[in-house]
Order: sequence, then C-alpha cells, then structure tokens
Amino acid sequence: MMDVNVYRVPMAGPDDVSELEKLIDDGTVNPFEICAIIAQTEGDGYSRGYASLCFELMLSEKMKMPRAEVAARIPMLMIGLTGGLMSPHYTVFTRREIEAPENSEKRLALGIKITRVLLPEEYGTAVQVRLVAEAVREAMAEAGITDVADVHCVEVKCPNLTAARLADAQSRGKTCCSTNFAEAGSKSKGASALGVALGLGEIKEEDVTDEAICRNWDLYSKVASTSAGNEQVACKVIVMGNSTKSVSKYHIGSGVMQDTLDVDGAKAAFKSAGLRFDEVIPQSERERIATVFINAGADAMGSIRGRRTTMKSDYLSGYQGIFAKAVINAIVGAMVGDTMILASAGYEHQGPLGANLVAAIVKAD
Amino acid sequence: MMDVNVYRVPMAGPDDVSELEKLIDDGTVNPFEICAIIAQTEGDGYSRGYASLCFELMLSEKMKMPRAEVAARIPMLMIGLTGGLMSPHYTVFTRREIEAPENSEKRLALGIKITRVLLPEEYGTAVQVRLVAEAVREAMAEAGITDVADVHCVEVKCPNLTAARLADAQSRGKTCCSTNFAEAGSKSKGASALGVALGLGEIKEEDVTDEAICRNWDLYSKVASTSAGNEQVACKVIVMGNSTKSVSKYHIGSGVMQDTLDVDGAKAAFKSAGLRFDEVIPQSERERIATVFINAGADAMGSIRGRRTTMKSDYLSGYQGIFAKAVINAIVGAMVGDTMILASAGYEHQGPLGANLVAAIVKAD
Amino acid sequence: MMDVNVYRVPMAGPDDVSELEKLIDDGTVNPFEICAIIAQTEGDGYSRGYASLCFELMLSEKMKMPRAEVAARIPMLMIGLTGGLMSPHYTVFTRREIEAPENSEKRLALGIKITRVLLPEEYGTAVQVRLVAEAVREAMAEAGITDVADVHCVEVKCPNLTAARLADAQSRGKTCCSTNFAEAGSKSKGASALGVALGLGEIKEEDVTDEAICRNWDLYSKVASTSAGNEQVACKVIVMGNSTKSVSKYHIGSGVMQDTLDVDGAKAAFKSAGLRFDEVIPQSERERIATVFINAGADAMGSIRGRRTTMKSDYLSGYQGIFAKAVINAIVGAMVGDTMILASAGYEHQGPLGANLVAAIVKAD
Amino acid sequence: MMDVNVYRVPMAGPDDVSELEKLIDDGTVNPFEICAIIAQTEGDGYSRGYASLCFELMLSEKMKMPRAEVAARIPMLMIGLTGGLMSPHYTVFTRREIEAPENSEKRLALGIKITRVLLPEEYGTAVQVRLVAEAVREAMAEAGITDVADVHCVEVKCPNLTAARLADAQSRGKTCCSTNFAEAGSKSKGASALGVALGLGEIKEEDVTDEAICRNWDLYSKVASTSAGNEQVACKVIVMGNSTKSVSKYHIGSGVMQDTLDVDGAKAAFKSAGLRFDEVIPQSERERIATVFINAGADAMGSIRGRRTTMKSDYLSGYQGIFAKAVINAIVGAMVGDTMILASAGYEHQGPLGANLVAAIVKAD
Repeated sequence: MMDVNVYRVPMAGPDDVSELEKLIDDGTVNPFEICAIIAQTEGDGYSRGYASLCFELMLSEKMKMPRAEVAARIPMLMIGLTGGLMSPHYTVFTRREIEAPENSEKRLALGIKITRVLLPEEYGTAVQVRLVAEAVREAMAEAGITDVADVHCVEVKCPNLTAARLADAQSRGKTCCSTNFAEAGSKSKGASALGVALGLGEIKEEDVTDEAICRNWDLYSKVASTSAGNEQVACKVIVMGNSTKSVSKYHIGSGVMQDTLDVDGAKAAFKSAGLRFDEVIPQSERERIATVFINAGADAMGSIRGRRTTMKSDYLSGYQGIFAKAVINAIVGAMVGDTMILASAGYEHQGPLGANLVAAIVKAD
Repeated sequence: MMDVNVYRVPMAGPDDVSELEKLIDDGTVNPFEICAIIAQTEGDGYSRGYASLCFELMLSEKMKMPRAEVAARIPMLMIGLTGGLMSPHYTVFTRREIEAPENSEKRLALGIKITRVLLPEEYGTAVQVRLVAEAVREAMAEAGITDVADVHCVEVKCPNLTAARLADAQSRGKTCCSTNFAEAGSKSKGASALGVALGLGEIKEEDVTDEAICRNWDLYSKVASTSAGNEQVACKVIVMGNSTKSVSKYHIGSGVMQDTLDVDGAKAAFKSAGLRFDEVIPQSERERIATVFINAGADAMGSIRGRRTTMKSDYLSGYQGIFAKAVINAIVGAMVGDTMILASAGYEHQGPLGANLVAAIVKAD
Repeated sequence: MMDVNVYRVPMAGPDDVSELEKLIDDGTVNPFEICAIIAQTEGDGYSRGYASLCFELMLSEKMKMPRAEVAARIPMLMIGLTGGLMSPHYTVFTRREIEAPENSEKRLALGIKITRVLLPEEYGTAVQVRLVAEAVREAMAEAGITDVADVHCVEVKCPNLTAARLADAQSRGKTCCSTNFAEAGSKSKGASALGVALGLGEIKEEDVTDEAICRNWDLYSKVASTSAGNEQVACKVIVMGNSTKSVSKYHIGSGVMQDTLDVDGAKAAFKSAGLRFDEVIPQSERERIATVFINAGADAMGSIRGRRTTMKSDYLSGYQGIFAKAVINAIVGAMVGDTMILASAGYEHQGPLGANLVAAIVKAD
Repeated sequence: MMDVNVYRVPMAGPDDVSELEKLIDDGTVNPFEICAIIAQTEGDGYSRGYASLCFELMLSEKMKMPRAEVAARIPMLMIGLTGGLMSPHYTVFTRREIEAPENSEKRLALGIKITRVLLPEEYGTAVQVRLVAEAVREAMAEAGITDVADVHCVEVKCPNLTAARLADAQSRGKTCCSTNFAEAGSKSKGASALGVALGLGEIKEEDVTDEAICRNWDLYSKVASTSAGNEQVACKVIVMGNSTKSVSKYHIGSGVMQDTLDVDGAKAAFKSAGLRFDEVIPQSERERIATVFINAGADAMGSIRGRRTTMKSDYLSGYQGIFAKAVINAIVGAMVGDTMILASAGYEHQGPLGANLVAAIVKAD
C-alpha cells in the first residue's frame, strides 16, 4: 500500500527552499520519500532553473547524494511567472510503501514516469503523443489507479526545441515540427496534452496525427497541464488520482471551468475533491484544502461571454499568459480565501479553448 | 424632479464612440442631456486623451456646438490601462428635469461640480482637500441628496503636477507638495479623496493637514475614486447617490471589500444597490445591473491574507496598477458573469489601504 | 518644375501639432502645399491614430476643408513606439509647382501614389507586390525621377489583416496569406518591400511569388521602409529621390548598414546625401541635415558579429522592435549629434536581414 | 610584484559558467588566483543570484573548497538586465604575486576591500560614504597605486534596504535614510559613489553630509560605478588602476562622456587606456581591448542636447535603466565593433547627471 503526503509551503524568492529544509530538519519530511515538487516561482523564466538548482543543492546535502542523482530522482516542475495576487510557493509530495490492507475508499495516489529521450524531430508530433500516452498508462499502474475516471490531474514537463536541437535534426536530414521555436514549443505542449488524452481514453488512437496537434481543438484532455522547458530531453509525467491502493489522508478531485467566469466548474472541482458546501465554501472546509492546481486558458481568447478583452491586442499582450494566470488565481482564490494556489498557463489541448482546469487536493474526513 | 439614465456600451478601441453615436441617432439619447461619460479605455495613458477627443468630435457634430464647448459642458472621466478580462467600454449618464411629484423612493441622482482652477502649489495640499469638499457638498445639493449616507460613489478627476507647472510655481517663489511628479500625482489624488471624505463627514475638519495627505492612512473615504491627469487644471467632481428628487429607474449602492478576496464586501454592495440574492446572484438579478464601478487597491499591498504576492517586487511591478484592476475585475466579474465593469486603481485614501470600493447601479424593481 | 521643402519639428506628445500650426500661422508653410507628414510618435500603437487625428483637425481648420478631405489629401505616416534617446518629432514635406528652367543639378523630389484598395486575400501576396511596384513607378514619374539610382527612400504604409477582414475573405471562400495576424502583417510589409524592390529593378519579375514573401531573404530593397496599419485599405507609397525637375534646396542620399555596428554604411549614406567629411561629421556639416530616416533591422537577429544578444530571448523581447530602433537611433544619433531622427523597425525584405537602411536629406551647398 | 590577467568570455545564460570552467580545465586560469568576476547577466534581477550561485558551485568543485568559502573569497559583481545589442558575458580577473623588479611602466593593478557590515540605519548616509572612502584607500594601497590619478574604475556593490532590515532598525529605535526601498537603494548607491569620490579626493571631507546624498549633484566621482543588492550586508570595493607594482600585460584608462552622445569622451577613455587612433579605432587596435566597463546615466535625464526623449514618460519607463544601458552599449559598441562590453546603469553621483563613465582595459604594446 502507498501513503502519499502533501506539503504546501511559501517561498520568499526563487532561491528560497528553507521551508522544505525545516520540514526535513524537524523530521516531518523524509527526503528519501519525496516523489515530486511542483512550484510556482516568481521572476522570469530563468527563475525556474534557479529554483530547481536550489532544491537540488539543499536536498543533495540532506540526502548526502550527488546533485545529479537528486535531479534524476525527484521530478521538479517549476511553473514560472507570477502576477496579481499569485503567491510564490511549492508543493512537495512524498510517497512511501507501507504494510496495510487494501483501502475501502479511494485516496490520493501518485504515479511518475519519464519517457525515453525524444529526438528533436519527434517533438510536437504523434510520436510524442504516443510516448506520453504510454507513460500515463504506466504511471497510472504505478499509482494503482485502474479507472481513468480516478485520474484528476496529469502534469507533464516536456522538451522545447532549441537552436542546437534544430541544427542537430537538420544535420541528420530531419524536419522538425516548426522552425519557429515558440510554435514548436506550443506543439510540444499540445502533443503532451494529447498524449494524456490518449492515455486516458479521452481521444481515440485514430485522432492522433501530426496535423491534429495545435489545430484540431476539439481534441483535448480535461486533466492535463503541460509545460515545456529547454532543459528537458524527455517527457516527465506525474499522474495524480485516487486509488484503493493508497492510504493517504488526502483525496483529489477536478473540474472544468468552461471559461474563466465559470465559477460552477470550479465548485464542481472542489466538490469532486470532497469538500462539502452549497454555494460558498465555509472556513472549516477551506481548511481541508491541501493544494490547488489550475491550468489557465484565458490567454487563448480575445473575448469572454461576448465581451472583448485586450488580452491579445494590448501593449502588454506579450505577458498575456501571466494575466491569464493572475485572473484565474484571483477568481478561484476568492472562492477559497487563499491565493497561494498554483496557476499554469497553457491552452494547447488542455481542456477546450479558453477553459480552465482545476484540480484540488483535500484532506479526507 | 430629475430623471437620470445610464447607458453602458462597449468600445472597440480608444477611438470608437460609435455606440453612443447610434444611441443618439436612434433617438435613445438626447446629447444635450448627457451629463457625464466615464470610460474604461485600453492602450496606454495617451488613449485617454484620444478617447476624449473622439467623444468631443462626435458630440460637437451631433450637437452643432464647438468642440471646446462640448468639453466644458460634459465631464469625461477616462480610466486608462486594461488587462486580463477587463473589457473596454463606457457609461453615459443623462440627466433631465421633468415635472413630477417628489418620489417616495430614493432613486439615482447625479450632481456635478468643478472647483476653481488650482495653483500648482495647491495640488496635494489641504487647500485642495477643502475645495473638493466644497464641490462635493454643492454637487450633493445639486443632486438633491440630503443625507451623506445616500452618496455611494464620488468620482474625482484632478490635476497632475507637470514640469511646466512646477516651474511656474517656483518662478513665483512657491513650493509644491513634491518635486517628484509621481509622488505629487499621488498626493493630488489623495487630497481629492480626503476632500470627498471631508465633504461627506467621513473625516473631521481638524484631520485635514498637509502632512496627513498620503501619510495618515487611517483617514479615507469609502466612496471616493480619484484619478489625476496632466490635462486637468481644476477638480471635476461627480457625486452619485440616491434621492427622492429623482424619478430615475435606477438605484445605486456601494460596499467596501476590505481586501481583494473580500467577496462579502462586494455582495454587500450589490445588495445595497437593490439586488436580491443570498450567496449567488442569479441571472435574472444580474440583468438588472446597469453598470459597476470599482476602485482597486491591491497594488498598495505586497501580500494578501498573509500570503506574499509579487505586486511590488516583480519585473512587471511597473504595471502593478493594471494587475490590481485585472484581479478585482475578475473576482467581481465572476460574481456578475460580466467583466465589462469598470476598475480604477488608486489606494490614496480611497478606502483603507488594500481595500476595494464597489459601487453598482441597478434597475429598480 | 517642383520645389520641395522639408520641416522637422519636435512634438511634446502624440497630440502636439503646435509646431506645424506655428509654421502655418507665420506663413512659413502653406498648408495647401503639404504633401506628406512622417512622424515618430511616442506611446503605444493607438498614438498613431491619435496623432493623425490631431493633424487632420488642425489642418482642417487652417485649410477650411472637411477633415476627411485632409486625410485623403495628405498621406501621414506615423511611426509609433519610441525608446532610449529617440525624440518624438515629425517631418513635413511641402511641394509646389513653379516656373523655372530645368535644373542642372538633381535635387530632392517627391512622388506619392496610393494603390487601389486591396482585398484581404491579396494582402501579403504577389498581387500586393505588383501593385506597389506599379505605384512606385508612377510615383517616380510624378517626381520626375528617371533613374532608379536616384531613388533613396520609399516609405510604404500598407494594410494589416484584421479579424473582420479575414472573416470577409472567408465568407467569400477566399484564403488569406495567414490566419495569424502578426504573420499576416509581416507578409503585408514584406510584400510592400518587395514591391519597392520590383518597382526599382532590385529584383526580377520572376522572383515575385507568394512563396518568396517573408521566406526568401535574398530578395530585398535597399531603400524600402514599410509599415502596416489596421486603418489602411490600400498601400500609400512615398518615393523620395533626386531629380533635375526639382529646384529644392535639399538633396537626399542613402546607404545600407550591413549590421547595426556598420558605421561605415551610415557614413556612406551621409556622404551620398552630400555631406563633406572624412571620419567625423563636423558641426557645420551637421547643420545641413534636414532630416534622417532609418529602417532598423536589429530585431531580426539574435546576435551581432558573433556576439549573442538577448533580443529574441529576454522577458522584454515583446518590445524588441523598440530596442532595435533605440540602438540604431543612438548610433546614428551619435554620428550627427542629434537623436531627433526617425527610426522605423522592419526586417521584411527591407535590406538584407539584420541590416539598417539610412536615408538623409541635407541642404545642398 | 603583482601580475594581473583579464579574461572576458561569453555566457549562454545566467547559469552558463562553462567558459571559465574550460579556462581552468586547460590550465589557463588558476582558480586560486581569481580575484574578481564581473558579469553582465541577462534575465531579471534574480538572474544575478543564479549566476553567482553557478560560479560558486563550479569553483567550489574546482577548488575543492566549500561554496561559502568561495563566495567569501571571490567578489562577484553581477550586473543584471540586458537589452538591445548587449551581449551577456563576464570578465574574470586573476592576480598573483611574483618575484620581479619594480616596473618602469604602470600596469593594471587591482585592489579589493570589503567594509565592515553596515547597520541598516547607516545605509545611504555619511557613515557609508566614509567607510567606502576608507576601503577605497586601502584597496589602492593593496594595489600599489599611489596616485589617485592612476585609478580608472572603482566598482562598488553595496547593501539595499529591505523590509526586514528596516524593521530591525525601527525595533532599535533607529531611522533609516528612507522608508521607500527604491529611494533607499538609490541613496546607498549614491553614498557608495561619494565614498569613492572622497577616497580619491574628488570631493572634500566637508562636502560629506547626509543631506548631500542624492541631492547635491555637483558632487560626484568620475570613476565610480555602484550597484546595490539585497544580498549584500557590507560594501565590496574593487579598485582598478595602473601601478609600477604590476607587471600585468594590461593597462587601464578612463574618460567621461558628458552625455550619451559625447563620443569624444569615449575616445578619450580609449586613448587614456593606450589605444592609438585618430578618429576611428582601427581593427588592429580594437583587438588590444580586453574589456570595457561603462556606467550609464541616460536614464537620469528626460532630454539630450535639447531634444526631449521618452525615457521618463513612456509606458516602458519602468525599464529606463535597461534602455540607458542599451543605447550607450550601442554607441560605444559601434566604436569598437563589439557589443560584448559591460554597461551598468546608475546616475547617483557616478559622474555628473546624465554622463557616462567609460573604463577600458587594453593590452599594453
């Protein structure tokens, strides 16, 4: 049986890993049981690498293990760029095997898989879709999740095309999905999201073509949140769901906000996770929330409910992803009275265009 | 007796005044009855002047009146800089005298006053506070509002210190409130807000000193929203409240959100305006909303409910006012299912530090 | 015979047309002789329309002519977005016919043509290239320029694809050059630049294909500077060169800076325009400069002379065009001791990739 | 006798210290001789800490020394935020004692001192000025520089006031120089620059008052470049000059550009460093340049040579320091054909207001 714990703590800067250090020092967290760290880091894109490095350094010391080994062992997803009321923080997941009878209730279970290293020409293609799908299925099995309906959040970190990788592919006579790095990055994220959809049966095998990626928006996953990084060479997949193989004191749920004002979608997510409320989440139930992950999609749209926004036209439109995250953080934050919740921007097959995916982990009763 | 009407329409760009033109052309709006236009314009600061000019030009043609006369006759408050889900739009207020018996109910009434031209050295001082207070009282009288509790929103547009004005003051041996234009602008807004507070009895005459301005944050108005512009030489004051002297079909209400997550404060505002709901505003009641004005204050704070934000530290912190507006627009927009509501950023004595002031105008039953 | 005059004056904001007003009021400029206004406006994109409107209003009054007629009569090119040492200003060109014998020297001559209205599906295609080429040839003829080597600057303002235009094309079953507006805008600018190149014989008729636009970077003009605007429906072409049909006291010259550090290319431009200097332009020669137009191309590149820049990778990379303009303005500004010179960003077939095109108008001896 | 070497190498990102690693691995650089690293890092402010950490980690491994010891031993000045043509890079200085007779020529010499830890209430005050002055004199002595005229560049990294430090001071009943962190940071930099000026006799002891700091702009150093960081608790001072105690193959020189267009000031700097040229620096002389440090001051001004800029008014004015660096980098870069030269922004008593300070290190003949 698996026991999974969840620790959400603030960070004072991209280099501040002191809260986890304290949890380790006081015996709350056994660093060898850490199975994933998901952070919302401030600053620009470089802060992601900075934060990762700081985690690796601290853990390397605590675990008396070379830094590279820590990096290989613990997947770290750094979601960069904050704005508005977003509060930099990270969530640490621990997992351990314990002797116990199978649970009568389903509880939080995590499965983690890393695909093989992808060739640059495979980024953003059907090959990537299928590799991610396979990793999702394996991670589900690892987590002891048998029903795809029990999967509520799949975080994928996948590779970005870079100048060096493009050159490598071209030197071997291969064509990449785009020579525009922004577009290639989108397709890598899109392929990862479709991989989740395929792995969970949300789309069919025959839907998966190179052409469909970032083009056929009718295909999507309701639980995928994907991001791409120049430092990645394979796809890291973290599947979160509920399983009778887990004795965790936590439970996860999810929901789709059809657009950023769809408060009912967010409520459904919290109810799916096990919170009890009618319209407003009372303080006592709010306290059961361990962490919240949102995939924001407002930056995909230039309007909402017939009202034009300036998301795509304004002189700040280069930062539209940050605004998309800031507004969904504010809306969901207002529902739970706390803005230390994670928002990641990504519209590529991560829910229908313009939707937001909400996953919540709460303490079981 | 006064009849007041309210028209909220979208704008496709800072130069788009076509919706008002249509309302005039189809006879809905008599341009000679327009008493104020309050707009949420996209783009940077120059868009405010651009939009004003476009309104003046169109109205000058419709009213067959020189442009300068239109400008002098109709106060136009342009609130610039949008982000997130904010939707550029404007609200047109009309007012006319009609023969009718005094109303048994209090309805929306507007009073508008412009102070005398201020000297640059008076900006951001107790002199400005008192001039605004006097204008508030006169505007109340004009609106037929006798009880300060019936005032729910006071919009003030006041002058900014500029290099030329500073030089003028110095040439006359006078000292301005600051030689830093940003600080001087803040003090001008702060003095205007304290002027509203003084006019409405929210603070006492003896509280009003030069030193208190932008320093003693215990002093504030719960209904003031002030902005400063280089083009202003006096303070334009628009008082909105309810009066038995009005037969308007609209009613105004207000409330204070103690912080940006204080959803209950926003609910109180909508209830104060006359909406009937328990926790969630139903569609039928949402349809009664004519317009919403919010004064956003999140940019005054570096944290919310103990959670650190990056409002003041991030590389985008030069745009913190836009983020403050975007997040409150999102939260209140989610409550009413519409983000075409106005948000203005300003913390200077406009509510307690970090608060948001919400005013809503709704159709009476 | 043609007489052409050039007036370069500062603007205190996008709405400041007072310097031209003064020139008209004191009799220096006859508004009926104004044939073009080219401005460097500050602020964001909306400032371009704002400035145009302010010019139209003022000239409408001075010329006692409806505003629309002024707009149709005088091409106004507003180059928006300033940074660094760039100084907002505008250059007014006047042209009049006078009785005089043909000049033995070639002097500044302007020709202006507007193509027919383009259909949205023609934007960014070979059709646009050929229409611009034809307009260039006609404008040359109008200017009395017979040798393409005498053309030193061709400014083109062309249409942008918009949502409405795309919808229009699609409703008629037509395909536009891109459904991505940024890409479509680039192609419209690229097609305009290739149109100049074709009109001047810099490229051959058989080079002109839809596919070549924004793809075959070996094709370019050395004198084209093109910009696109949502407000344009046709291409406005201003050809500047030298002609014996002109008795202007000005002469124009040009040069190509192969990259942004290629100071020798800029020197060649000033020498081509008639300045006499060896390495450094002395003050006496600087005073002969009437105006300078630069087309900046640094934002097309991620490195310069083997040194990597952050033009394309930084968190400010959304503003790379402004940086490209700011740095070339600084370098050329340092050569002439004046940064009130115009810089426009545009890499699409406007010189080789990464090059800057410099045109200078100077007083003849 | 001292031997000083200088290595300027590119960095591919804030975490890229591979070039120095190569120099160490191939025996070119003995890490124990490294006395300072001065870097121009891309990204936002956090990249400075990230880069420092990466240097410390790599050097810790090479030197088999704890990271903290490396940090204490080698001053690292990270100058963050790049734009335009600026090329991220770093300069490594090595210093070693060798047996040799005193040099007949003066050559590059470095002296490095760190003041005692300052109390928060001392930041930005005359106390800081005097401490820095003392460190400058000691560093001069360490460098074997006896004549202040031989000092050409003094880099100072000093502490920033932070919320925690302000609270600490207030808890002890002390007042800090400002409660506005931006202003306090400016004053810390200003005090450091005045400290250099005092140490070098550019100002007099009686000029040094708390009030003069960031107020009396007639006081300044011609060779100081100062920056402040939240991570600093003391002032790190690096004095660079020429001394007969050095047998370095390098020589340093400096000059003041009175404004950003003052190319003659930059030429004087290169000539002072030993380059031979008349107006244009030929390729053979350019190759003698080891590194260039510029302190940029354009962001202090809203105009240049009577031409208004938008440095202080534009919507990008939050990034004016980056623009100031980008334009001086471009101008000086164009003179030397290379933009991999360092630019730091700082107007506080670092040269007269609006000036740029240029220091160049070149190979002696």
